[in-house]
Amino acid sequence: MSFQDRVAGYVERVEQALAARLPPADRHPASLHAAMRYAALGGGKRIRPLLCYASGEVLGVAPERLDDAACALECVHVFSLIHDDLPAMDDDDLRRGKPSTHKAFGVATAILAGDALQTRAFEILAGDGMTDASERLGMVAVLAAATGSCGMTGGQAVDLEAEGRQLSANDLEALDRDKTGKLIRAAVLLPCCAVPGLPAASRAALDHFAECMGLAFQIKDDVLDVEGEQALTGKTHGADAAHGKATYPSLLGMEHAKQRADALYTEALAALERFGAAAGPLRWMARYIVQRDR
Amino acid sequence: MSFQDRVAGYVERVEQALAARLPPADRHPASLHAAMRYAALGGGKRIRPLLCYASGEVLGVAPERLDDAACALECVHVFSLIHDDLPAMDDDDLRRGKPSTHKAFGVATAILAGDALQTRAFEILAGDGMTDASERLGMVAVLAAATGSCGMTGGQAVDLEAEGRQLSANDLEALDRDKTGKLIRAAVLLPCCAVPGLPAASRAALDHFAECMGLAFQIKDDVLDVEGEQALTGKTHGADAAHGKATYPSLLGMEHAKQRADALYTEALAALERFGAAAGPLRWMARYIVQRDR
Repeated sequence: MSFQDRVAGYVERVEQALAARLPPADRHPASLHAAMRYAALGGGKRIRPLLCYASGEVLGVAPERLDDAACALECVHVFSLIHDDLPAMDDDDLRRGKPSTHKAFGVATAILAGDALQTRAFEILAGDGMTDASERLGMVAVLAAATGSCGMTGGQAVDLEAEGRQLSANDLEALDRDKTGKLIRAAVLLPCCAVPGLPAASRAALDHFAECMGLAFQIKDDVLDVEGEQALTGKTHGADAAHGKATYPSLLGMEHAKQRADALYTEALAALERFGAAAGPLRWMARYIVQRDR
Repeated sequence: MSFQDRVAGYVERVEQALAARLPPADRHPASLHAAMRYAALGGGKRIRPLLCYASGEVLGVAPERLDDAACALECVHVFSLIHDDLPAMDDDDLRRGKPSTHKAFGVATAILAGDALQTRAFEILAGDGMTDASERLGMVAVLAAATGSCGMTGGQAVDLEAEGRQLSANDLEALDRDKTGKLIRAAVLLPCCAVPGLPAASRAALDHFAECMGLAFQIKDDVLDVEGEQALTGKTHGADAAHGKATYPSLLGMEHAKQRADALYTEALAALERFGAAAGPLRWMARYIVQRDR
């Protein structure tokens, strides 16, 4: 059975794991917990959890040991979506094919739901107590570095400042390395924390793979913002252009943007060579990321 | 030398520790890092760090081992202040005697600065690698539980929902046990993570002390909102009344509110009895919390 045959199972797996790790919607304060579950459950491609499980397969780390990491990644990702969609930020009304959280629950609750989902990510990683503390603490460190002001959140700050300004393609790549890239890299690197004796070169190769795919992922997102079907992407079509945002198609032209994504895909695959056939799951994820239609 | 003589030193200590643990203001993205430092440095009573160091003294945990915990507590506290002050929340323009973060840096940057300060709290706790991983992981768990949807953030959600509605004094206490109380308790309990063999009864006694003082702290805050000097508190005077917020003076009357704070103070001191003279630092903190004028 190839990784492709397991993808649907992994998506179901992280959906159930998340549902079990978020407070029930009727638990006090109910509106906050309902908003957290609304944003986190029942949608999304779950690309970061999938990358985490795929990387775990490559490294021989069982999915049972990565459920917390997969859920924490998705909690951070969803927190960033909620806050990015706020009126003071990208002001987007549609997300995953339904009203964004602030449209459904109000701005104040949306801010707090994002805050609480971030907290929950670290609480999940710190949980349990059964598995090795240094493994879990390493995951907290990797996820926090990817999330904070020198990672995803910093990238969003630069993105907002750049709106309406002229960026070069290099500027845009630098921005996206933080905004999208750091969390994608964390998804691939978290399983490394569960392999104490992992050679540094193996970790570096996975990191190189993830860095390439993080950029390729963002270029594909920009392409889909222009060419994608709103019914499939579940996002407001053409939102980037409407915000005067620099995108790869707008800076490089559509054809060159696609070529850049292809080149990054090729570079990512080359980084996996040292793992041989064992890297199949990450190869499949790489192809999925550049070929997806949503 | 009594704890009172060390307070100024501890305030200076956490100020320097925080300054060293936040990215420099000229580091990219500069506006985000400037906003984080603006909100976190050069002001504030540092009550949570002080409670943490005081609890450490009672338990025999050296301040060097609590600097990360003290900074993490303050990062979470400042993150909550930034987000609570936002226009969509309490809409407060003044904080610690200067324009609140969204007034100084704009709403989007303020949201992201709060987000990044929360992340930094957990990154600081996960840092180092020199000290025991299970000690640090325990701190992550305690802080996350205090911060999230069943703690501080949940309390703020209930507080917002309650605006303009009739609350009983019991409702208000329940709300404040989460909104203010959980982080105060975390401040006293984090040093327990550094004492592996601590008897459960000792931890429970510290927790009882902190629960009482968390409520007493909030009652005192409400009293100061009415009777305090804006020049000292650094907050908008009468902000609670202006927001139609239920407060202890408005629900109980000023005299009964003060009596309730006194009763909680007495109960808090009683919880410390098992520690004998060693509990002096927490006794001093308790008196400071109910007698402060800012």
